Amino acid sequence: MKQSQPAGHQPEGGLSEALLTDLYQLTMARGHWKAGRLDAEGSFLLSFRRAPFGGTWALASGVAEAIETLASLRFSEADLDALAALPGPGGSSLFEAEFLDVLRRMEGFDLDVDAVADGTVCLPGVPMVRVTGPLWQAQLVETFLLNRIGFETLVATKAARIVRAAADAAVLEFGARRAQGPDASIRSARASWVGGVAGTSNVLAGARLGIPVKGTHAHSWVQSFAGSGDAHETERQAFEAFAESMPDGCVLLVDTYDTRAGIENAIEVARGLRARGHGLSGIRLDSGDLVELSVHARKALSGAGFPDVKIVASDDLDERKIMELRARGAEIDVYGVGTRLVTGGEQAALGVVYKLSAVRENADEPWRPVMKLSSTVAKRSLPGHVEVQRVVRDGMLVGDFLSAATDDLSQIQGDREHLLRPAVRSGDIAPDYPLDLKSARERARAELARLPEGAFDLDAPEEIPVELSSELSLLQAQLIERATPAAAPIHQR
Amino acid sequence: MKQSQPAGHQPEGGLSEALLTDLYQLTMARGHWKAGRLDAEGSFLLSFRRAPFGGTWALASGVAEAIETLASLRFSEADLDALAALPGPGGSSLFEAEFLDVLRRMEGFDLDVDAVADGTVCLPGVPMVRVTGPLWQAQLVETFLLNRIGFETLVATKAARIVRAAADAAVLEFGARRAQGPDASIRSARASWVGGVAGTSNVLAGARLGIPVKGTHAHSWVQSFAGSGDAHETERQAFEAFAESMPDGCVLLVDTYDTRAGIENAIEVARGLRARGHGLSGIRLDSGDLVELSVHARKALSGAGFPDVKIVASDDLDERKIMELRARGAEIDVYGVGTRLVTGGEQAALGVVYKLSAVRENADEPWRPVMKLSSTVAKRSLPGHVEVQRVVRDGMLVGDFLSAATDDLSQIQGDREHLLRPAVRSGDIAPDYPLDLKSARERARAELARLPEGAFDLDAPEEIPVELSSELSLLQAQLIERATPAAAPIHQR
Repeated sequence: MKQSQPAGHQPEGGLSEALLTDLYQLTMARGHWKAGRLDAEGSFLLSFRRAPFGGTWALASGVAEAIETLASLRFSEADLDALAALPGPGGSSLFEAEFLDVLRRMEGFDLDVDAVADGTVCLPGVPMVRVTGPLWQAQLVETFLLNRIGFETLVATKAARIVRAAADAAVLEFGARRAQGPDASIRSARASWVGGVAGTSNVLAGARLGIPVKGTHAHSWVQSFAGSGDAHETERQAFEAFAESMPDGCVLLVDTYDTRAGIENAIEVARGLRARGHGLSGIRLDSGDLVELSVHARKALSGAGFPDVKIVASDDLDERKIMELRARGAEIDVYGVGTRLVTGGEQAALGVVYKLSAVRENADEPWRPVMKLSSTVAKRSLPGHVEVQRVVRDGMLVGDFLSAATDDLSQIQGDREHLLRPAVRSGDIAPDYPLDLKSARERARAELARLPEGAFDLDAPEEIPVELSSELSLLQAQLIERATPAAAPIHQR
Repeated sequence: MKQSQPAGHQPEGGLSEALLTDLYQLTMARGHWKAGRLDAEGSFLLSFRRAPFGGTWALASGVAEAIETLASLRFSEADLDALAALPGPGGSSLFEAEFLDVLRRMEGFDLDVDAVADGTVCLPGVPMVRVTGPLWQAQLVETFLLNRIGFETLVATKAARIVRAAADAAVLEFGARRAQGPDASIRSARASWVGGVAGTSNVLAGARLGIPVKGTHAHSWVQSFAGSGDAHETERQAFEAFAESMPDGCVLLVDTYDTRAGIENAIEVARGLRARGHGLSGIRLDSGDLVELSVHARKALSGAGFPDVKIVASDDLDERKIMELRARGAEIDVYGVGTRLVTGGEQAALGVVYKLSAVRENADEPWRPVMKLSSTVAKRSLPGHVEVQRVVRDGMLVGDFLSAATDDLSQIQGDREHLLRPAVRSGDIAPDYPLDLKSARERARAELARLPEGAFDLDAPEEIPVELSSELSLLQAQLIERATPAAAPIHQR
C-alpha cells in the first residue's frame, strides 16, 4: 500500500513526476528490457563529491519529501501517451507499445531505499541514499533524486552556515523574488528552515509548511505618500500611516531617501506610538554602510529611550558578509538574507552523483561489486554493498566509517550510528523513517552542535575524517586491477 | 473574462500562487486599506540593473507565462484561511476579517500590464514590464513577477550565450538533475529553448512544452554488464546490447573505463551495425581532456570509415569552456550543457527590481511621478510614465530611448519599435500579446541576429546605448532636488 499523494507530486495535464527523468534513463530501461534483463538488480549510492561553499560538510534536506514522492510515483496514461509520441531515429516511435506496457504494469517502483534523515550532517563521498531493486527501475529515479536532494541540501547547508555566522542575531529568509521559480522558492524556504533560519517572508511557503512568516514594508510604501511636501515629510507621513495600521510590531524601512533622516523619522514615530501605549518593533537598513548606519541607529535609538527597537539589516548578505559586519562592530539584531541563501549564491548546485555499486542478473545470484574508474580518485565510485557507520566520541562527531557487510567493526572506538536508515521497503515507506519537518530542524540543530568548532571556519575549515574499511579498499583495488590490463595496450599506441 | 488556468498555476491543498508574495506586500496592502487608500493607483516598472554574466544585454523569458498566470490569479478560500491564521504582534490575527474580505471580493487583479514579449533582447535599466492599477494590487504581484521573469530571463540569456559560443555545433540542455527543483528544471528547459538550444534531456519538460528530447546512456549501463570478463570486454558487451536495442540513432558513452579503448569499442560496434544495415549515431565524451580526446576520436572514426558519427561532449561546460575548446581545436559536434546553464552557474539570480514610478490618490487625479533616491546612480529609479522606444537602423539594434509620454520623438534617427506591448487590460490578457513558445524562440533568434558582433564578446562586450529623453532627465533632477533640502541638515549633524 502506498501513501497518499504527497506535497511535491503535482500532476499537470495528467503528466506525473515519473517523467522527471533524463531520456537516457528510459532508453536504458528499454535497453534492459530488450536485452531480457528486467530481472537484473542493481544497487546505487547517492553522494556528493565535494562539500559546497568550500566547506567540509553538508546538511541533508529534501530526502524525506523525495522518498514520499518516490513511494507514490507511477506512470500515468498521459505519461505513457507522451512517451509513445516521442519520435525514434527511424521515424517510428522511440518506445514501442510493448515497452510502454512494461511501464504501465509497474504499480509503483518496487525499490528498497535506505537514506539519511533530513537534518543529518553529511560528509563528501559518504552515501546519503542507497537504492536497491530492479536495475531498470533504480536507474529511472536517478534524475528525480539528484534534483530534489541536491538542491535542498545545498540551501540547507548555506542556511546553517549563515545562521552560524549570525551567532546570536536571528536570520530571516527573504529570497522569494530571487529564487529559481515559485516551487524553488518554497523548497528553499523549507531547506532554510531545516538549516535554522527564524522565518521566511514567503507567505505561500509559510502556509504550506507551517513555518513563521515575517516582513516589514518596501520603499514603494514610502514613495506612494509623495505629495507636495519634501521627501523627509513624505517619509514621516508614510511611517505614521504604517505605524497606525500596525501599532504593535511594525518595522520601518529607513533608507528610501536619506537613512539618517529616516532614523530620525522612525524615532519620532516611536515616540508617538509609546505615547499611545504601543511600541515600534524595529527599523530596517537595506543599503549603504551597514556598520556605520547600524552603530548610528543603535546610538540614536538608545539615546532617544528606545534601546529595545530591533535593527534589521538586508542587502545581498551571506555568511561572509555577516562575519565581516560583525567583525567591524555592526549593531544588527536580525539579518534578512535572500538571493545568496535561496540560490546557493556563488555555488548554485551541489555536485551530487548516483553511482551503481553492485549488480546481479536476478535475485538468486550473488551481488557483483562494480565501480566507475577514473584517473581522478574523487571520481572513483564505491563498489559493493556499502554500510555507513557514524562514529561519535564524547558527544562529538569523529568521522564516518565506510564498510562492507562482512567487515569487523569491533575495532572502532566510540559510539556507532547507522547513517542509512530503512526508508522504503518494496516501494512502501518504512514506518520508522522520519518524514516530518519539525524533527528535521531539531536533528539539524543537534547535528551541527556536535561538529567541531573548526568545521565552521569559512577559510580553512576542519575536515571530518572518512575512512574506508580494509575490505572496501581491497575491493576497490581489485576492481581497478581488473580494468587495467585491457586498457593499457590502448594507452601505449 | 479570464483565460483558463495556465500551466504555471498549481494550487495545492487549495493554496494558490496568489500567496507567492512577501508578507510585506500584504501588510502594505492592509496599510493602504487602513489608511483609506484602496482607490490609490500606482505604476510600477520592472527592470534589471546590470546584465548577467558580465554581458550587456539579457534575453527575456518567463514574461508570457507570468502574464497568463497573473490574469487567472485570485485568493482562494484556503489562501484566506492561511492568512487568517497568521499571528499578529499582539497575539491576535495579523489580518482582520474585514481586510480579508477586501481580498475575497477582488475577482482577479484589476491591473493593466505592458510588457516586452518573450525572446526580446533587453538592456539594463530599461523597463521590461509596466504594471498600472490599484496600488495595493500592483504591489502584491511584485514578488511573483520578479521570481518568474528574473529566473527565466537569466537562463535564456545563458542559453543564448552558450549557443553563440558553440557556433555551428548544437547545444543540448542536460541539466535536469542539477536544476533547483523539479519545476525549475522545466522552467530552465523552456528558457533554454527560447535561448536557442536544440533540445533537452528532460522528458517531463519535453512532454509539457513540446520541445525535442535527446539522450544517450549512462556509465551505469556499461557497469551493469560487468561480469567475469575485464572492463574492456564488459564495455563492448554493453555497447553491443545498447546498439542492439537501438540500432539506428544510438550514442555510446565511451569514458566509463578508458576513453581511447572505449572509442575502439564504439568503432567495432559501428562496424557491426553497418554490416547489418544500420548506423551508429554518435559517441559521447564526459571527462578528460576533451580537446585531445575529441581530436583522437574524430581521427579514429574517420580512419575507420565513420566520418559522420557525431562527437558529443559534456563535462561542466559553459560558454567560456566551449570557446576555449573551440580555440584549442576540439572536434565536437554537439555540446551537452547542464548545471551552468540551468542554474545560471556563476550567477544564480538576475537582479530584477520593481520600482514605483508614479502614484495618484484616485483615477480622477493627475499622476505624481516618484523615484527611489540613492547615492548609487544605478539604484535610482525612473519616475513617471516611461515609454520605451527601440531604435533600429539598417536592421541592427542601435539602442533604447526612454521617454515621457509628452516627449517629442521626431528627432530619433532610425526605425522605432514600442518595446512595451499591451499585455493585460483590466485584468484580461490583451488579444495581440504573444503567449506562445514558438514565437518566443523565433523572436529570440531574430533579435540576437541584429545585435552587433561585439555584444557577444565574453571579456569586453560592447554596450548598447540607453538614452533618457531630456524631459525624463529633467524630471529626475527635479525629484532629487526636492528630496535634498530636508536630508541635508541631518547629514550636517
